[in-house]
Amino acid sequence: MTVGLTQQDAALLSRAVELAAQGRLADPNPRVGAVILSAQGEVVGEGWHHGAGTPHAEVVALQAAGDRASGGTAYVSLEPCSHEGRTPPCTRALLAAGVRRVVFAQADPSPVAGGGAELLRSQGIDVTGPVSGTGAEDLNRPWAFSAVHGRPFVTWKVGSTLDGRVAALDGTSRWITSAGARADVHRRRATAGAILVGTGTVLTDDPSLTVRDAEDRPVGVQPLRVVMGERDVPADARVNGPGEVWHARTHSAEVVLKTLQDKGIRHLWLEGGPTVAAAFLRAGLVDEALVYVAPTLLGDGPSLVASLGVPTLSAAHHLELLDIEQLGQDVRLRLRPRPVEGDL
Amino acid sequence: MTVGLTQQDAALLSRAVELAAQGRLADPNPRVGAVILSAQGEVVGEGWHHGAGTPHAEVVALQAAGDRASGGTAYVSLEPCSHEGRTPPCTRALLAAGVRRVVFAQADPSPVAGGGAELLRSQGIDVTGPVSGTGAEDLNRPWAFSAVHGRPFVTWKVGSTLDGRVAALDGTSRWITSAGARADVHRRRATAGAILVGTGTVLTDDPSLTVRDAEDRPVGVQPLRVVMGERDVPADARVNGPGEVWHARTHSAEVVLKTLQDKGIRHLWLEGGPTVAAAFLRAGLVDEALVYVAPTLLGDGPSLVASLGVPTLSAAHHLELLDIEQLGQDVRLRLRPRPVEGDL
Repeated sequence: MTVGLTQQDAALLSRAVELAAQGRLADPNPRVGAVILSAQGEVVGEGWHHGAGTPHAEVVALQAAGDRASGGTAYVSLEPCSHEGRTPPCTRALLAAGVRRVVFAQADPSPVAGGGAELLRSQGIDVTGPVSGTGAEDLNRPWAFSAVHGRPFVTWKVGSTLDGRVAALDGTSRWITSAGARADVHRRRATAGAILVGTGTVLTDDPSLTVRDAEDRPVGVQPLRVVMGERDVPADARVNGPGEVWHARTHSAEVVLKTLQDKGIRHLWLEGGPTVAAAFLRAGLVDEALVYVAPTLLGDGPSLVASLGVPTLSAAHHLELLDIEQLGQDVRLRLRPRPVEGDL
Repeated sequence: MTVGLTQQDAALLSRAVELAAQGRLADPNPRVGAVILSAQGEVVGEGWHHGAGTPHAEVVALQAAGDRASGGTAYVSLEPCSHEGRTPPCTRALLAAGVRRVVFAQADPSPVAGGGAELLRSQGIDVTGPVSGTGAEDLNRPWAFSAVHGRPFVTWKVGSTLDGRVAALDGTSRWITSAGARADVHRRRATAGAILVGTGTVLTDDPSLTVRDAEDRPVGVQPLRVVMGERDVPADARVNGPGEVWHARTHSAEVVLKTLQDKGIRHLWLEGGPTVAAAFLRAGLVDEALVYVAPTLLGDGPSLVASLGVPTLSAAHHLELLDIEQLGQDVRLRLRPRPVEGDL
């Protein structure tokens, strides 16, 4: 336990993390929860962040507490921000409410909004944090990645046969993997801010790229749909359905990611096809790969990734195998690129 | 427990199975063990079969027992053969020794040597068997398969990248999989009677196809090496090292298997490449597939299987996933073709 943390502190910080988890993952902002304890030792306010453009968790909890926050303690799952964004900084709200002590779990890694703890300390507030082991980090991994790296976290998902084919000779590809594997995909991609495919996939498969399982996102709000490539897309393509669609007329993964970061996307879900996958892999811009392998053989048809410019075996792209799971008759391999020496 | 089987019977039958396991798997003959109990209730002989051309287990045990077998019981892991092969039938030896009772575990499924129990019964011997649950069947799966189907059991082994490549653009393929995966391959292929590759593999990789881990086979005895295809093989190819080599100048998997069956091969280990794999798969002559997947991507290079003549997804070859195992950073998938409706 962190020095200066009582059992009550630990319990209330846990509660703040629990509140944070009620927020939605597919959002530009992190999921944050807050609890206000009065000077008399009573819980007088709770709150969590409902998504970009709505008040931050601290502000919600302070509003519930009203005057009773004065002289009290704020427990927050994430270091209070010191950044004037669409809403005023939380550090200012905490100071204005007369809070005397702040306990927080995860440090804010972002260069823009970070530094809140230091600012509060400089104003005479008793600040404890970061406190590890609360699980707060697990709530906001893509957001933290994006804050540190200045681009969205990229998950590449592909479903293939045993021989690495993603379609048959005649282009048919529905469905290579089983219903169980596809359900796993839908559940996972529902947490992403954007889904990307190449123009080739739009022209061949005409996917709608909508999310059906909406547990992790606001009802009715779909991920941003991104179509990458220079070819035109028919106006009546399913991808042009209701909601935001962006046709990125470029072959550059860097350009796409920069724009997505500016659009507030923290997690990009890359669905392919082979050309798009190769563009991101060659640029070193895949952070996690989910390969769903069906126990079938085609012998012909496109492979899961286009040319990577690899002439010989020693130049192969190496990934690190994180875990394997059997999903019905399919197998899911979860991998990440091996960090380049000195990269981390 | 089988009707008429005492606890002593069960124990001595177990002992016979235990003795059988000392035999070698990579042999045309099954592994068999035998125990002789005298009329006085004493174990007077034990034996197991040491391989084709040597005496059968029953004969070894009867020789140890001598006169004391008369009026006694023989416990055998496999139904005694009634077939005059390189050695006389065991049924005759048991009758000649004056054994009064025979207890056996596995029934002999072979049309040539089977029927021993019936023959013994017709001669007034008290016969109990087959007795299930002894584990005897596990000792001789390829042999039993070959007895029933009239051809060797075929294991297809392939090591590939995530994108199904078995070599890079320049032909390099050593090593796609890790040392751990290759050790697993060597352990498994050491139990096979023959190893087969195509002429393409010989010309590209020049493998020696020898077995290093010799636990399951006589010391110094290598599997039969089979090279399939019509192209010539250089005289100084490694595959032409000491031991038996057969160049099968055909593209027909059926023809190869027929000849191998006649040569006493019960288990063929198919190592590829893609053309050979396709020939066996298209003919429906792969019984087990071991796919070792390395967590790498090549983007170019030959795929693990050549064309299967599959034009569309609904015509894909389906296999049944039996199990998955992680071997270091590689994954081994063990599969078998789905039995065609009405095939079994």
